Amino acid sequence: MTEPVFELPRGFRAASCSAGIKKSGKPDLTLICADRPVRCAGVFTTNKVVAAPVVVSAPRVRSGLCQAVLVNSGNANACTGEPGMQNALRCGELVATALGIDPQLVAISSTGVIGKPLPMACFEKHVPQLAANLGSAGVDDVAAAIMTTDAFPKICSRIIEVDGRKISLLGLAKGAGMIHPDMATMLAFVFTDALVAEGLLEASLKRAVEGSFNRITVDRDTSTNDMVLLMASGVAANREIAFGSPAAESFDQALGEVLLELAKMIVRDGEGATKLVRIQIVGATNDADALLVARSIATSALVKTAFFGADANWGRIIAAAGYAGAEVDPDRVGIVFDEVPMVAGGLGLGSEQEALASVILQKPEFTVTVELGLGQGSAFYYTSDLGYNYVRINADYRT
Amino acid sequence: MTEPVFELPRGFRAASCSAGIKKSGKPDLTLICADRPVRCAGVFTTNKVVAAPVVVSAPRVRSGLCQAVLVNSGNANACTGEPGMQNALRCGELVATALGIDPQLVAISSTGVIGKPLPMACFEKHVPQLAANLGSAGVDDVAAAIMTTDAFPKICSRIIEVDGRKISLLGLAKGAGMIHPDMATMLAFVFTDALVAEGLLEASLKRAVEGSFNRITVDRDTSTNDMVLLMASGVAANREIAFGSPAAESFDQALGEVLLELAKMIVRDGEGATKLVRIQIVGATNDADALLVARSIATSALVKTAFFGADANWGRIIAAAGYAGAEVDPDRVGIVFDEVPMVAGGLGLGSEQEALASVILQKPEFTVTVELGLGQGSAFYYTSDLGYNYVRINADYRT
Repeated sequence: MTEPVFELPRGFRAASCSAGIKKSGKPDLTLICADRPVRCAGVFTTNKVVAAPVVVSAPRVRSGLCQAVLVNSGNANACTGEPGMQNALRCGELVATALGIDPQLVAISSTGVIGKPLPMACFEKHVPQLAANLGSAGVDDVAAAIMTTDAFPKICSRIIEVDGRKISLLGLAKGAGMIHPDMATMLAFVFTDALVAEGLLEASLKRAVEGSFNRITVDRDTSTNDMVLLMASGVAANREIAFGSPAAESFDQALGEVLLELAKMIVRDGEGATKLVRIQIVGATNDADALLVARSIATSALVKTAFFGADANWGRIIAAAGYAGAEVDPDRVGIVFDEVPMVAGGLGLGSEQEALASVILQKPEFTVTVELGLGQGSAFYYTSDLGYNYVRINADYRT
Repeated sequence: MTEPVFELPRGFRAASCSAGIKKSGKPDLTLICADRPVRCAGVFTTNKVVAAPVVVSAPRVRSGLCQAVLVNSGNANACTGEPGMQNALRCGELVATALGIDPQLVAISSTGVIGKPLPMACFEKHVPQLAANLGSAGVDDVAAAIMTTDAFPKICSRIIEVDGRKISLLGLAKGAGMIHPDMATMLAFVFTDALVAEGLLEASLKRAVEGSFNRITVDRDTSTNDMVLLMASGVAANREIAFGSPAAESFDQALGEVLLELAKMIVRDGEGATKLVRIQIVGATNDADALLVARSIATSALVKTAFFGADANWGRIIAAAGYAGAEVDPDRVGIVFDEVPMVAGGLGLGSEQEALASVILQKPEFTVTVELGLGQGSAFYYTSDLGYNYVRINADYRT
């Protein structure tokens, strides 16, 4: 198996650099541009404390057209008040001026330390250079420039065929948990050369985010800067993908796969994480209840520390199901670790099963299936374990 | 200052023993009895997975009359199915037979490992002996018999005067976090010799629990066995404390103080905890919003690890406020660590303040006040820090 070589879909060019925002001198600024205004869709943090770049970009993206996105790492421009807003607007202006386009077509995105002013001199100096160098950066360069505490870059692509034409989707994400010390922090960018009907991008993105980034947890903390941006250049010149068409279905599926793969990479790279665990709920009264139970188990500190310790502690799982706020009948609950049944009818199946399950819990990836025995509702969630390194990273960073 | 000597209020007698339920041979069974049926009130776990002793005791307590409570540690009798229910009922019968009273007057309570059958031989043998030895156990003995992973016993008392008569309240609790490995786990018992009007005990207990046990968090996990029981012997022979009277007010206040003190002891004894932190929200739109924000900050893993590391990381606090689901205007937020302002108008006050705050964060107890600047709503929450020992206790217990 050869390493995949990632390429930006046709119609997009990128540049990136070390602008001096990060003290380390690592890459920290990247500009990705479409050759002309293109359709776009976005999903933004639900935190009431919203970073300035999100405040500036959200309405622009929601207008449905976008041409360029500027992303910096090393500084989140969050909790920076009115000066932070002015700085965010200025970043957009710098891009617009350099490219000779309307500032309304520029999205900006920041990730890094909260509460410090953006070092504007870095932007004033480097944005014009980035605009002049568009096309010089590969996907790896872009991925590197958006990293903060990530242990590895997160890139995923899919190619689908529509009307005999190849369409490519490329996704990039950053995030290692939600927040490193004061990092504000989950960003994802997806580019495609597909020609897609107006409004369909947004619907497709919302569905895909619901089944990916909204189904992962590292520490339950929602960042002030979260943003997922999807841009479609249309350069593939396929027949426009229309609502409800088979092409829309394959586009949806490919987008869902890209986002889910990126989301799983974020959990694998979760702060201190050593395991990626899928929590699969089946047999709930309905899907909403299943999701409540999945989230409750996936976010339980007791469940996550048990995963870290490879302890097949089903009592904690059943307790977390019980306080999820969903309909749960303890006497019907079944729990299976990968293929090993641990609990049936609410009762443990004994120490032999527990020993088998402990082996599964030592694997880097496994699935915990909880059968509620009440109906047809199902849902999943991906979570990490909670180990010493989570505490080390988050408590000792500044010492 | 001399150590307080705790005594059971008049009208109650107790016995306790090592019945062999705990492998360690430590005290694990206690019986507390009133001399006759007395008024009582209870609050029980909201977990859908309810342990058998809670299922059995809740309706008995809610009837308003109770005479005896049997508590065992070492086994929670949770997730034990129909045999578990039979065992719980049998425990009550053993007490009723030994005392010659109606089983409906007996509450039972269990705490310890989930999913294992109660060792009934221990109960068959020791309950009659306990009944014969009533009066032999002091408060310390009772407190010891209900402990599981608690590092210290949790006892608190208050004496108030009503109509020139002394009334005493004595509270006992157990719990170190919510759940040790598979411990199911927060129990509190309050005894008083007050004569209290019908229904007033229940109202008073609900209010006191709301302001104490419902305002603490160690790990956000709700146990299957939680139970708070209040019994009033009436032996003080005061004029019956009536709804809305000044006496009811002082009774409420004393009960609230006892429960809050016990609740704070539980957080101090939280698994791996080194600090007790009061999260105080003021200036919220209303009290409900204030509580949402307090709970969100108090349960944030990022905030709790920062407390552990004595890192005055206000960005995490403001982010947790932002995703609480309450009305929050980031530009109005102020944050104060004890007396040291850290944030005003949503902006950090600089590194000098941060250095002062770091000193406060090294104290074993401190208060974080968050001013939302929106209205008159306020709320508090007590939380612990999250350190390596939380992971050690919960991940490595069985290895």
